[in-house]
Amino acid sequence: MNEASTTAPGVALIVGAGDAIGSAICRKFAARGLTVCAARRNADKLQPLADEMAAAGQPFYPFSCDARNEDAVIELFTHIEQDIGPLEIVIFNVGANVPMGILDTDSRKFFKIWEMACFAGFLCGREAARRMTERGHGTIIFTGATASRRGGAGFAAFASAKHGLSALAQSMARELGPQNIHVAHVVIDAGVDTEWVSNMVPDFEQLKADDGIVNPNDLADNYVMLFDQPRNAWTYELDIRPWREKW
Amino acid sequence: MNEASTTAPGVALIVGAGDAIGSAICRKFAARGLTVCAARRNADKLQPLADEMAAAGQPFYPFSCDARNEDAVIELFTHIEQDIGPLEIVIFNVGANVPMGILDTDSRKFFKIWEMACFAGFLCGREAARRMTERGHGTIIFTGATASRRGGAGFAAFASAKHGLSALAQSMARELGPQNIHVAHVVIDAGVDTEWVSNMVPDFEQLKADDGIVNPNDLADNYVMLFDQPRNAWTYELDIRPWREKW
Amino acid sequence: MNEASTTAPGVALIVGAGDAIGSAICRKFAARGLTVCAARRNADKLQPLADEMAAAGQPFYPFSCDARNEDAVIELFTHIEQDIGPLEIVIFNVGANVPMGILDTDSRKFFKIWEMACFAGFLCGREAARRMTERGHGTIIFTGATASRRGGAGFAAFASAKHGLSALAQSMARELGPQNIHVAHVVIDAGVDTEWVSNMVPDFEQLKADDGIVNPNDLADNYVMLFDQPRNAWTYELDIRPWREKW
Amino acid sequence: MNEASTTAPGVALIVGAGDAIGSAICRKFAARGLTVCAARRNADKLQPLADEMAAAGQPFYPFSCDARNEDAVIELFTHIEQDIGPLEIVIFNVGANVPMGILDTDSRKFFKIWEMACFAGFLCGREAARRMTERGHGTIIFTGATASRRGGAGFAAFASAKHGLSALAQSMARELGPQNIHVAHVVIDAGVDTEWVSNMVPDFEQLKADDGIVNPNDLADNYVMLFDQPRNAWTYELDIRPWREKW
Repeated sequence: MNEASTTAPGVALIVGAGDAIGSAICRKFAARGLTVCAARRNADKLQPLADEMAAAGQPFYPFSCDARNEDAVIELFTHIEQDIGPLEIVIFNVGANVPMGILDTDSRKFFKIWEMACFAGFLCGREAARRMTERGHGTIIFTGATASRRGGAGFAAFASAKHGLSALAQSMARELGPQNIHVAHVVIDAGVDTEWVSNMVPDFEQLKADDGIVNPNDLADNYVMLFDQPRNAWTYELDIRPWREKW
Repeated sequence: MNEASTTAPGVALIVGAGDAIGSAICRKFAARGLTVCAARRNADKLQPLADEMAAAGQPFYPFSCDARNEDAVIELFTHIEQDIGPLEIVIFNVGANVPMGILDTDSRKFFKIWEMACFAGFLCGREAARRMTERGHGTIIFTGATASRRGGAGFAAFASAKHGLSALAQSMARELGPQNIHVAHVVIDAGVDTEWVSNMVPDFEQLKADDGIVNPNDLADNYVMLFDQPRNAWTYELDIRPWREKW
Repeated sequence: MNEASTTAPGVALIVGAGDAIGSAICRKFAARGLTVCAARRNADKLQPLADEMAAAGQPFYPFSCDARNEDAVIELFTHIEQDIGPLEIVIFNVGANVPMGILDTDSRKFFKIWEMACFAGFLCGREAARRMTERGHGTIIFTGATASRRGGAGFAAFASAKHGLSALAQSMARELGPQNIHVAHVVIDAGVDTEWVSNMVPDFEQLKADDGIVNPNDLADNYVMLFDQPRNAWTYELDIRPWREKW
Repeated sequence: MNEASTTAPGVALIVGAGDAIGSAICRKFAARGLTVCAARRNADKLQPLADEMAAAGQPFYPFSCDARNEDAVIELFTHIEQDIGPLEIVIFNVGANVPMGILDTDSRKFFKIWEMACFAGFLCGREAARRMTERGHGTIIFTGATASRRGGAGFAAFASAKHGLSALAQSMARELGPQNIHVAHVVIDAGVDTEWVSNMVPDFEQLKADDGIVNPNDLADNYVMLFDQPRNAWTYELDIRPWREKW
């Protein structure tokens, strides 16, 4: 966040605005006073969030966008900047973990996981950087995972893509920091309260009742916190996990 | 922070309450509503901070304590818990960087740097853990540095001690997390606005004017943020550096 | 290396058999007694090495193969196993570093660097694993670089791809180790004596004369060493750099 | 290893010459042609190794030395250099893992584990460096463990000491490499075939029969390999574990 933006916080874009984490981030930045743009593959699924935002009087713009498609990403950024306002913060939150043994990893899946988790992050990060470097300020946050730090049996494709994203983030942080662009990486080292995790984890409800599952709202607070850090004290990376989590 | 403590935030102890970082942390936790205890080798040097706290009506207890001395540390913790209140958060912030080549590192210096930067951290961390595990909640934060992550020419003694502290912190985080004790490690990867740094860095004033030096107050916000994290979404480690910093 | 292979060391395949590192690895494994298969985009460039091997009476099979092409990779592995012999070791040595700022990184370059440095490694690693797991033994080595460990300004694309490869390697090591497949990662943290580096580094000849450039033959010894490690004491990762190198 | 030493490989010193790893290292360097000096707390325990070396006609010098004692370490190095020959390689192999919860870690144990695993390594490393920098060559190797890379529940004291040693090693490598001193760190990420491990691991014999326990002789080969690396291609760190090991 820079001085000028204090009075007019501007526009936030969340790419990968799913029902849990992405939507929670949208709500927090709306509450923080920003105009929120949310992109996911199918914007229809953003209708409940749009209704909620409308009821609360929060400016909110849902977009359908396949973030793996360069033309679509460029169009999204161009449209927002022209018609809505300058992007103060862009958050890349697309994920796609499908555990599978290396022998069974077909090349389409390996490619697709990378395309979603890493290549789309590159496209969004670069488009954000192109606009923010011109203005001389801005924040870009990438969402990471356990697999961003550690390869594991059954995670070759996902860990490869997430490591790729983390190296992109770190390279961008080192390159763009001195241009006053704050690039950060949030490593979620645990299950979050999403529909997908609730179907995967056997004792989900019990874990959740015991604070053993990350609450998307509490997670999202960290994205706002990173956005609000003054530039003399920026964080590049932080990890998030519940108290009970083994790591 | 646990539920019970919401109404009575309790007591914070900062060990290594120097003029810059430590004092800034004291002010932030006082502002957060906690009763603040501050320890440093010579409590006389805490008088200006004590006066400031008194003027603001903040409860504040300065202590002289050599944190390398086990008896002194135990006495400090015992006294605070008996006479002031239960410790909700303990911050270990003692540092001692004296760059020197390996050939010139005498054994007393190597020992002393470890004793201050690592052993004292063990004593404080263990005493905090002993009390907090009995109550089933609490927060312990250790201050790290660039040398916590990387050994470098001229930094054998300091990096060795700081790596030792970081491994202590990580071991404690893994052991005590499931007991509802939040252990965190703040890695300061830059110069902070202290008297020592201002004497070491040639273009200090210019750097500072350009937000190239970490402001202790902005740094201290992160300690409060970690304290306030709900237990479903704890951070173990975050790094802090100015936008201009090379890393 | 397993017991059975002691008498008949079998076949080595080097994918990315360039003039410097790849060719040096070929020579070392030939000297170690293996039948060497070498693949690069254009096998014509392998003719000098083929002549050398023929003169030395070493069995050597050069192949043209675009390792980014799944069909081509599968055909290469199938052909070798059917007509030449079982693969005891497969080395993936394809690299492609083109430093460029994030703003100037076009999506084709980002994709192509990943395709060569990471995706091709996945294809070769998986095909090797499919055959070796059936036999219950084998060695797979990936060549890494400084950018495998660290993102940097100007290295977003390359670091992203190399991190992706390292996570693939680590995931495979953890998954395949218990199946008696030795997966290793050699991190070259320096310039190697290649035509490309000699054109990039200003004081190349002086550096080389002073052992400041990695000699491909000395580097290649480490690949043979890894191949010869008994399975009670396997190395997953080692780094290589000259004595003078800053790191 | 430098050129001059090829004809007269000189003297190797192993500090922490226990029955398993240390003794295996002694044998390998004797076989490599070096005059071997071995130090442990009580040299009487080196008698069987001394007898074995004598029978093989290998020059071997056992020493009693408490490596935590600066005077004793200096005397050891001085004596060897004056009466036996110049040290070409020094290996620090002292370890002391005693798992215990943080609450039960008394300050004497924390200190003692650090004194043995880290401080003694500093004393030996510095004394080696002082002599080797004068001659302009030499090799110094430190033995690390899983706890050198990762803190864990029950390992606060050991991980703290081992992280301290690894940072010492890395700092020395960065400082002394450009002075032609090769500093390396061998991370043993598994149980080794020692009396201690055989008592700790329930299914030891079965594991060992299945190559699931590191063989000291195979481990020791890596120390000789590091010693023999030419200076254009030095390794700072490698890890060692059996094929079956989870990591």
